[in-house]
Amino acid sequence: MGKRIALFDTTLRDGEQGEGISFTVEDKIKIAHLLDSLGVDFIEGGWPGSNPKAIDFFKAMKKEKLKHARLAAFGSTCRHGKPAREDKNLNMLIESGAPVAVIFGKTWDMHVTDALKISLNENIILIDESVRFLKSHRRTVIFDAEHFFDGYRHNQAYALEAVTAAQNAGADMVVLCETNGGMLFDDVMSATKTVVDTLHIPVGIHAHNDSDSAVANSIAAVLAGAVQVQGTVNGYGERCGNANLCSIIPNLQLKRGYSIVSEKQLRTLTSVAHHISEIANRTPNNQQPFVGHSAFAHKAGIHVSAIQKNRLTYEHIDPASVGNKQRVLVSELSGISNLLYKAKGMNLDLDKDDPLVKDILARIKAMEHAGYQFEEAEASFEVMVRKALGKHRPLFELISFHVTNEKFGIDDMSVEATVKIRIKGREVHTVADGNGPVAALDRALRKALCDDYPQIASISLSDYRVRVLDSKDGTNAKVRVIIESHDANDLWGTVGVSNDIIEASWQALVDSIEYKLV
Amino acid sequence: MGKRIALFDTTLRDGEQGEGISFTVEDKIKIAHLLDSLGVDFIEGGWPGSNPKAIDFFKAMKKEKLKHARLAAFGSTCRHGKPAREDKNLNMLIESGAPVAVIFGKTWDMHVTDALKISLNENIILIDESVRFLKSHRRTVIFDAEHFFDGYRHNQAYALEAVTAAQNAGADMVVLCETNGGMLFDDVMSATKTVVDTLHIPVGIHAHNDSDSAVANSIAAVLAGAVQVQGTVNGYGERCGNANLCSIIPNLQLKRGYSIVSEKQLRTLTSVAHHISEIANRTPNNQQPFVGHSAFAHKAGIHVSAIQKNRLTYEHIDPASVGNKQRVLVSELSGISNLLYKAKGMNLDLDKDDPLVKDILARIKAMEHAGYQFEEAEASFEVMVRKALGKHRPLFELISFHVTNEKFGIDDMSVEATVKIRIKGREVHTVADGNGPVAALDRALRKALCDDYPQIASISLSDYRVRVLDSKDGTNAKVRVIIESHDANDLWGTVGVSNDIIEASWQALVDSIEYKLV
Repeated sequence: MGKRIALFDTTLRDGEQGEGISFTVEDKIKIAHLLDSLGVDFIEGGWPGSNPKAIDFFKAMKKEKLKHARLAAFGSTCRHGKPAREDKNLNMLIESGAPVAVIFGKTWDMHVTDALKISLNENIILIDESVRFLKSHRRTVIFDAEHFFDGYRHNQAYALEAVTAAQNAGADMVVLCETNGGMLFDDVMSATKTVVDTLHIPVGIHAHNDSDSAVANSIAAVLAGAVQVQGTVNGYGERCGNANLCSIIPNLQLKRGYSIVSEKQLRTLTSVAHHISEIANRTPNNQQPFVGHSAFAHKAGIHVSAIQKNRLTYEHIDPASVGNKQRVLVSELSGISNLLYKAKGMNLDLDKDDPLVKDILARIKAMEHAGYQFEEAEASFEVMVRKALGKHRPLFELISFHVTNEKFGIDDMSVEATVKIRIKGREVHTVADGNGPVAALDRALRKALCDDYPQIASISLSDYRVRVLDSKDGTNAKVRVIIESHDANDLWGTVGVSNDIIEASWQALVDSIEYKLV
Repeated sequence: MGKRIALFDTTLRDGEQGEGISFTVEDKIKIAHLLDSLGVDFIEGGWPGSNPKAIDFFKAMKKEKLKHARLAAFGSTCRHGKPAREDKNLNMLIESGAPVAVIFGKTWDMHVTDALKISLNENIILIDESVRFLKSHRRTVIFDAEHFFDGYRHNQAYALEAVTAAQNAGADMVVLCETNGGMLFDDVMSATKTVVDTLHIPVGIHAHNDSDSAVANSIAAVLAGAVQVQGTVNGYGERCGNANLCSIIPNLQLKRGYSIVSEKQLRTLTSVAHHISEIANRTPNNQQPFVGHSAFAHKAGIHVSAIQKNRLTYEHIDPASVGNKQRVLVSELSGISNLLYKAKGMNLDLDKDDPLVKDILARIKAMEHAGYQFEEAEASFEVMVRKALGKHRPLFELISFHVTNEKFGIDDMSVEATVKIRIKGREVHTVADGNGPVAALDRALRKALCDDYPQIASISLSDYRVRVLDSKDGTNAKVRVIIESHDANDLWGTVGVSNDIIEASWQALVDSIEYKLV
């Protein structure tokens, strides 16, 4: 077992500062349980002194049971001019009931004189009194040294004096905050080393990603002796985000042998990351290291043929160790080996010398040129290949569909869709309403198919994405619709492309249903 | 002037290996000119031996003039068993006409024995003969040492022997490729240092981002003596992408004083990055360091009040130095200072003690709860604030609209929208068709307004995005539509939310037009 490094997650506090991120109290509770199951040691739930939702969260958490993690409440050192015991902010940390209190204080001299507008010594007294007050209430106290690295660069002696004051007042840990995110790894490494050598209490690191170095900076601090890493899931956070725990955990554990979470917990990393992106309602970043959908996706022909022999040739770790998986992409750049690999996965016998292979590659190229993309729509790809091989039997023949949307004044919209199809020799004509045109069309189609294919009831649509392909044309542009469907066992994506969003949605809907039912 | 570091861009070759990325020859030419204007030294245009589009690109580039950059063609060392001069791959590098030839060769012993299935010495001969052949055609030769860092770890002597062979055969530069992207900065730094000390020709670095460290790894190599950095714009590339030049350039130049591009060129970085993401048809990553839309966006109330006093308090560089800008976000987390900052930008007098301020914050909170998001829709935010202040006069009153979509068999869709509005006391009733329902509705509305507001003709829609808010509900889910509009001078975003995509689009359309015309 390697040296233990503690994980401090601030998705619920600093992560919510990210543009477009807003959690409800229920969201926060769900995320707290996911973090707990992942093996996070500390969960920073919010700043009760600044955000009423944080107060509600800590209240609600009194009824929830965490298996391993401890809750932390965030606040600032007390204000100048009043004793710490009368500071509202500090008292709210106590009232939150969280066993861990995190307070940030100034360590950059310019912030003390220009933002707080007090003397350097007065700031030291604020740090001292705030920590002593929280310790007198028997909290575990973490002192977040805000802007530590900028402070260290501008006035090293003062930055060290400030963190030493926190230690001497009884703080359990000092966390060096790279608040502006602009440092590079060598800055972080040498400053952290000095602090570790200066203090006798443990030191942590809290990095931001403005120089695209938050992960490396966090690792640099650990290599210099830091024993706690603060960050967020998926790197959510203000500006360019916080240090991404989804990268730091596997890097430290798999590449440097530190002990962070169990192997079993590590294998849930991808699903926890995706689940939290769903709660945060952010499209996952496919390129995200370790947990992204593309993180182990191979497109270059030579890579694909090499990984089929030995996956280590183009994979830095076993994707399963973080709960991810290898994928092989098909595109006009990819060679025959990718197509054959895919076909094998579909149980299709395709010989590399079959002239159809060339036809299919040409068809892929033409469809990609028209805006189709199969990388996120492997079910449409399979339907297309089956069609090319003459192995596809359509479920039904469309005679017509019709969708109407009406709005009167400020009333809600009213939507109706009709579908007329020929199925097993009969004409079926159905109508449905719905919340929107695609929902109404989906319902009418399901009604038309459900007598012949009752298993259609088990298929649900789990995501629906629209991408304008040529945005210069505004609402006239061609759109690509990707639909993600699932049943109890399976998840599959389909694609449609058209200038008309309803037509594109129709293509993706039909592919989704045919993929599963044919 | 600091030490000069050369930029080698491989967006057109390795970047195109990224999932979902596919360039036409025209796209590639446009990107080459953008890279040239940014000050890139080498543009790797493709692999003529593997991709016919690359051949077309190099052919087309013979008619294009680059101001500064030199074109590079990519290929591999020759195959075993034939002399280099008969190798098709190598000959295509010469035929491409590119003055720079890049060949990758094996330096990891396992790849030689397991993938190439030849002896270690035979591989050294391939490297030697390939380099000599290209040099005999007077090309600048860059030897890409594939998997160098893995090779160095497993068999240091052989990895060094391979790069030394390239040098001795006359290669102009050896580039150390971190092909699998799994290394951390300390690995890269020490291995690069050894190579720099061993060779007498210049050394470069080519990193991938699988350990979320490509930027730090590239910088580590430069600090160890590398003088060329390879990467892609926006970090496009296979799996987790290549090293992101948009981060490496400003880091090296602004933070370490290296000389890379001119200050003027650096100020175009954000626009070049966005332009290339548009050509690549990838949604820009808002969190992207330096060039992302959120890179200098402040949300936390205390940050906003601090940056108003001194922007250095929460910004690591001046956003203008990379062509980006500061933004202040409004959300339920943000305090009164953010709202007042925004109102000032709208020329609205809003006093912080005005009871309306509280009303507006409550309204923001309720709308965000319903799924609205103003961060990308500042025009809708302004319309909402003007409504709250009683300063908004609607352009028209909707009586009704009606959109029908029909499809018969395999025919194209047919779409028709009618709009009935009351404007300046008159009823206007119009109809239009369009490529899709929203386009038809947009056209009918414009027809209804154009007599009274002829300036509507100058407004174009430049982007249209749809986000499913609660994907669990599939096509029944609530959707958020963001519309981006522009005229000759201005770009603005608006938002609509509804279970019906047409209703949501309508809200965003009306906001867009009212924002500009009221």
